[in-house]
Amino acid sequence: MSKVHNFSAGPCILPQEVLKQASEAVINFNNLNLSLIEISHRSKDFIEVMDKAQALVKELLGVPEGYSVLFLQGGASLGFLKVPYNFMKQGGSAAYLNTGTWANKAQKEATRLGEVIEVASSKDKNYNYIPKNFQIPGGADYLHITTNNTIFGTQLKNIPISRIPVIADMSSDIFSKKINVSQFDMIYAGAQKNMGPAGTTLYIVKDSALGKTGREIPTMLDLQTHIKKESMFNTPPVFAVYVSMLTLQWLKDNGGVEWIEGVNQQKADLLYNEIDNNPLFEGTANTVDRSNMNATFVLTNEGLKDEFDKMWQAANISGIKGHRDVGGYRASMYNALPLESVQALVDVMKEFGQKFG
Amino acid sequence: MSKVHNFSAGPCILPQEVLKQASEAVINFNNLNLSLIEISHRSKDFIEVMDKAQALVKELLGVPEGYSVLFLQGGASLGFLKVPYNFMKQGGSAAYLNTGTWANKAQKEATRLGEVIEVASSKDKNYNYIPKNFQIPGGADYLHITTNNTIFGTQLKNIPISRIPVIADMSSDIFSKKINVSQFDMIYAGAQKNMGPAGTTLYIVKDSALGKTGREIPTMLDLQTHIKKESMFNTPPVFAVYVSMLTLQWLKDNGGVEWIEGVNQQKADLLYNEIDNNPLFEGTANTVDRSNMNATFVLTNEGLKDEFDKMWQAANISGIKGHRDVGGYRASMYNALPLESVQALVDVMKEFGQKFG
Repeated sequence: MSKVHNFSAGPCILPQEVLKQASEAVINFNNLNLSLIEISHRSKDFIEVMDKAQALVKELLGVPEGYSVLFLQGGASLGFLKVPYNFMKQGGSAAYLNTGTWANKAQKEATRLGEVIEVASSKDKNYNYIPKNFQIPGGADYLHITTNNTIFGTQLKNIPISRIPVIADMSSDIFSKKINVSQFDMIYAGAQKNMGPAGTTLYIVKDSALGKTGREIPTMLDLQTHIKKESMFNTPPVFAVYVSMLTLQWLKDNGGVEWIEGVNQQKADLLYNEIDNNPLFEGTANTVDRSNMNATFVLTNEGLKDEFDKMWQAANISGIKGHRDVGGYRASMYNALPLESVQALVDVMKEFGQKFG
Repeated sequence: MSKVHNFSAGPCILPQEVLKQASEAVINFNNLNLSLIEISHRSKDFIEVMDKAQALVKELLGVPEGYSVLFLQGGASLGFLKVPYNFMKQGGSAAYLNTGTWANKAQKEATRLGEVIEVASSKDKNYNYIPKNFQIPGGADYLHITTNNTIFGTQLKNIPISRIPVIADMSSDIFSKKINVSQFDMIYAGAQKNMGPAGTTLYIVKDSALGKTGREIPTMLDLQTHIKKESMFNTPPVFAVYVSMLTLQWLKDNGGVEWIEGVNQQKADLLYNEIDNNPLFEGTANTVDRSNMNATFVLTNEGLKDEFDKMWQAANISGIKGHRDVGGYRASMYNALPLESVQALVDVMKEFGQKFG
């Protein structure tokens, strides 16, 4: 079969060599003659996987001393609850920047535990831009941001300058570009975009920021529980952690986040250039806030939808149907998507333009 | 390489044909020319997996109408928190049977939300028996039990007769024998013993029992959130659900829980018979409470430890080192462990007896 150009919004494309190694490990891991998924998580062989995954996160992102790296379960959605439990003081407040569906869900979860201040929202324009020049309340315990908004195709190009701690959900752009971890008290991210398969969530947390809320925290929601046990308080999601480790190793072997940032910029430039220059297409996100991960666009003539759909499907392109909240199309260009796949899509768009423009 | 006899306590042995299918799906799932782990969880292909996994649970356990089946993240450890949130009334109380480390952790988590009544405990004898003839408080909202205690090698042979709802953590013996689901308001179980790999947790919950606590429940801890969205409120742990589905299909194809109950009884009889008849070994659990899943035993002469260890290792036996809380040995005989592996262990024990007895 010919190659599929996989633009899925997540779970999404992973490097072929990672899939190959993962497939082999399901049969015979580390030449143990046992599967990765049938050995104890407390075995030497798996502990090495967990340690290596954590070390790769630290190396690739330049995580400073004093931060812990965790691989937990529950998705960023459970993270939405862990954030206020671990960082919002009893009787305190938290600031949230509302840039989309997931940002909004994070915010909603915090309202159960205390006062939430929405510093700004782009809901008025169906989240097609990133609010700027908002006031951050100095008395809030933290500012929560969502750095990339998968559904709406927007991305924070700059982390807000903040005197209060910043906590970021980076589920859909972590490892896509360089970041400065010391700007954050916590970063968290579901694995299923740039890091690995669904089933594990990465937390990078400043140790000294924990234990200060005065709250009683349920055991599994308390990040200190997991730091003390090095992500092994209970059985970790073995396969998801292993494949994340392989994916991070792949990233390192190819040149790290500096390298991928360049590749991702090339891919985004290629696609947005076509969207802007082809009169049959229109981007939905505010130009300066466009995401390098998820490009959202619509047809200028909806009557040509069937024609366009036939053409990209014939080119073995997969996963570009837009989210129901935006409509149109969404091309997700995560780390493992090669430039040639974006070129394949652009070629189809050009051909479509020539035929119907 | 020769076959490993995998007695790991969990994550544990899975059927070879399941591992083979899982390995293939990581490369090319359903002939999509895409990996299982790089497609959308909202794709037709994955929704079929989730639906089939739920249907197999219902079929294999004879789940009655009015119960929902969920595959979530977080392990039974997060279940310990979901139980009181969803079933303990505001200002109510709950009864817990303390039969081991995990039962105790479940109990501890409930104390955060209300009054916990420990109906009985076997802690006095390092949990080597199952308490009987205890009083169940009629006013409590539920009785929580742990049906199999992996660490201590004990198992509830009968579900307590109770006028209040019973909730059971069946992490280490679900699908090992017939059960009557209608005896329970909820059953939950981490997948990583008889059902699949680590990374997903099964919930079988009586719908009419939910929504009655008067509590505000955080979104991700509210079982109704997940029932409404059919386990797809957030991205599910795709691989773990898929491998669970394959394992349940394997169980069905081979004759279901009735068949495996017979096999498991044979395996347990074979091993316990050797433990009882070989003077060099001694079981640690009370005879009538012995688990068919985890057999715990010690040497009657600790001085022969190195000799015994050499012998079972030479026979390609893996994973029988006892848990640190009990010491000695623990042979876990989950569904996928063939009778021949138990025979291999028994052969070593016999040879050891002949040599040193």
